[in-house]
Amino acid sequence: MSTNKRIVLAARPTGFPAPTDFRMEERPVLEPAEGEFLVAVSYLSVDPYMRGRMNDAPSYAPPQKLDEVMVGGGVGRVIATRHPKFAVGDYAVGMFGWQQYALSDGQGVMKVDPAAAPISTALGVLGMPGLTAYFGLLDVCAPRAGETVVVSGAAGAVGSAVGQIAKIQGCQVVGIAGGADKIRWITQELGFDAAINYKAETRIGDALKELCPKGIDCYFDNVGGATTDAVFRLMNPSGRVAICGQIAVYNLDKPYGGPPLLQILVRTLKVQGFLVFHYAARYGEALPQLARWVQERKLKYRETVSDGIDTAVSAFLGMLRGENIGKQLVRIG
Amino acid sequence: MSTNKRIVLAARPTGFPAPTDFRMEERPVLEPAEGEFLVAVSYLSVDPYMRGRMNDAPSYAPPQKLDEVMVGGGVGRVIATRHPKFAVGDYAVGMFGWQQYALSDGQGVMKVDPAAAPISTALGVLGMPGLTAYFGLLDVCAPRAGETVVVSGAAGAVGSAVGQIAKIQGCQVVGIAGGADKIRWITQELGFDAAINYKAETRIGDALKELCPKGIDCYFDNVGGATTDAVFRLMNPSGRVAICGQIAVYNLDKPYGGPPLLQILVRTLKVQGFLVFHYAARYGEALPQLARWVQERKLKYRETVSDGIDTAVSAFLGMLRGENIGKQLVRIG
Repeated sequence: MSTNKRIVLAARPTGFPAPTDFRMEERPVLEPAEGEFLVAVSYLSVDPYMRGRMNDAPSYAPPQKLDEVMVGGGVGRVIATRHPKFAVGDYAVGMFGWQQYALSDGQGVMKVDPAAAPISTALGVLGMPGLTAYFGLLDVCAPRAGETVVVSGAAGAVGSAVGQIAKIQGCQVVGIAGGADKIRWITQELGFDAAINYKAETRIGDALKELCPKGIDCYFDNVGGATTDAVFRLMNPSGRVAICGQIAVYNLDKPYGGPPLLQILVRTLKVQGFLVFHYAARYGEALPQLARWVQERKLKYRETVSDGIDTAVSAFLGMLRGENIGKQLVRIG
Repeated sequence: MSTNKRIVLAARPTGFPAPTDFRMEERPVLEPAEGEFLVAVSYLSVDPYMRGRMNDAPSYAPPQKLDEVMVGGGVGRVIATRHPKFAVGDYAVGMFGWQQYALSDGQGVMKVDPAAAPISTALGVLGMPGLTAYFGLLDVCAPRAGETVVVSGAAGAVGSAVGQIAKIQGCQVVGIAGGADKIRWITQELGFDAAINYKAETRIGDALKELCPKGIDCYFDNVGGATTDAVFRLMNPSGRVAICGQIAVYNLDKPYGGPPLLQILVRTLKVQGFLVFHYAARYGEALPQLARWVQERKLKYRETVSDGIDTAVSAFLGMLRGENIGKQLVRIG
């Protein structure tokens, strides 16, 4: 424990990020000051939202600063402490950044019980992605039993949970994902009623129409772009659309126009962008429910893990290309 | 009372409707059958939504049928009856169509008290337009005191009520309308804080930015098109957009694309198309409140009235061109 390898943003990408937009640095590991503790990170999370923060554009969060450690969630073990509530040996999850060791004052950090579930799940199904699926589906889409729910990015950490929670609600669930192995996983193991491989399907609209003969009542959108345009054309009156991510357009130079407002009007749709952080007051309701579903095997998850902080950039870029199934993690510890 | 002049749809318009898309017919006035009554229409309403129904396209309502009387709201007096609940002399409002005399079985028809308010208000501030303003603003936008509310089509029957109800809620209200007289009316008589004449203003975005220094929290959209694009760029995080009408795009050949979903995501906007009919169960709450506001002079209204059934088509086309101020009516009786 002499040096802390960390990854900083070296340049703002235009279009798809390049490895040279990042830089690895080594820094001494610092001792915690009074009120702080030191975490040895076990896993860090790479997520689609990070691409948005790399632009110097107004958004819900300030942009990632140049030459500073990449912001991101991590889970790890407390190895030194001068904080009254965090003891050595505790596991914790928080925004520890893309680095091996992180100092924290405890703000926004939650303890993790390693006996209850693998600690990596605190970054996935029992963490932000699981909570995002829970609130985006149940609060924004609010599906009723028997309704048809479509989810894009269906084999990702969020999408795979959305589809399973929709099944628990008694819905007809159709997933859209890229790749035969993803399609197999969500239909054969997760219980989605049907799925579309958008990389193999030239006419997504026709495939959707066939798989959603009663139209689409709820759409949980992780991707945007042409896939989303096709879904909108099949939305039923009074349908609900949760806009969670737009990974298909993050790297475009120009804004990608949305569906006509006239379509939203005549079908009386609700289209809502949402952020899981706005539901922070209700995490205490959601996390035990998610954990119960995991225990009952109603909510399954999968992780794609790359090894070592040196692989963080390639894991992130691979995730942007859709190479992961389930939650993309980087194992550090 | 020998013949009933009525106007039917003669042809489906492409683009802006032409007078030749309509046809005047004369028919004998029929006697009510058992369970029916006959209304002599006093006023009929011409509304933007009628343009949408003239297309043979799926929408929330079936398309207007060719060679049948134009569907539309009217208010009038019962002159013959075989209906147990409607007596001769009663005033009533309902979908009587573009004609002088209408038979009705009472479905969807409400009685009107001519002593409480001029009967024409049953087609305006105390009818569908007032209810549309009430529910679209209070339920879909749900503005809080101090928030900035922008309304387009601000000098129309709906928009003028939206702005005044937003003022009653303690909001900062900016209207967008076309023409100096409209701007004068909504700012000097209705109490809007500011207004933009989109026909005179080449840079609506700049004007909006100046008049909405704290951004826009709620947008009540009656028009769509470039005006709406400019408003979306200034929406605040967690803003709410009620899509009520899209009159600027009804006559376009191609769909007019909406704002990027990425914008809706990063600003966590709610964009909702709505129909007043979905609130039918709550009319009984809204109508007395609207009437109280009218009595208290907090909710003012204006009517543009053309005279005679022969003027219905020109009144409708003028309304589509934005020539009316307040509610556009056709006086028949």
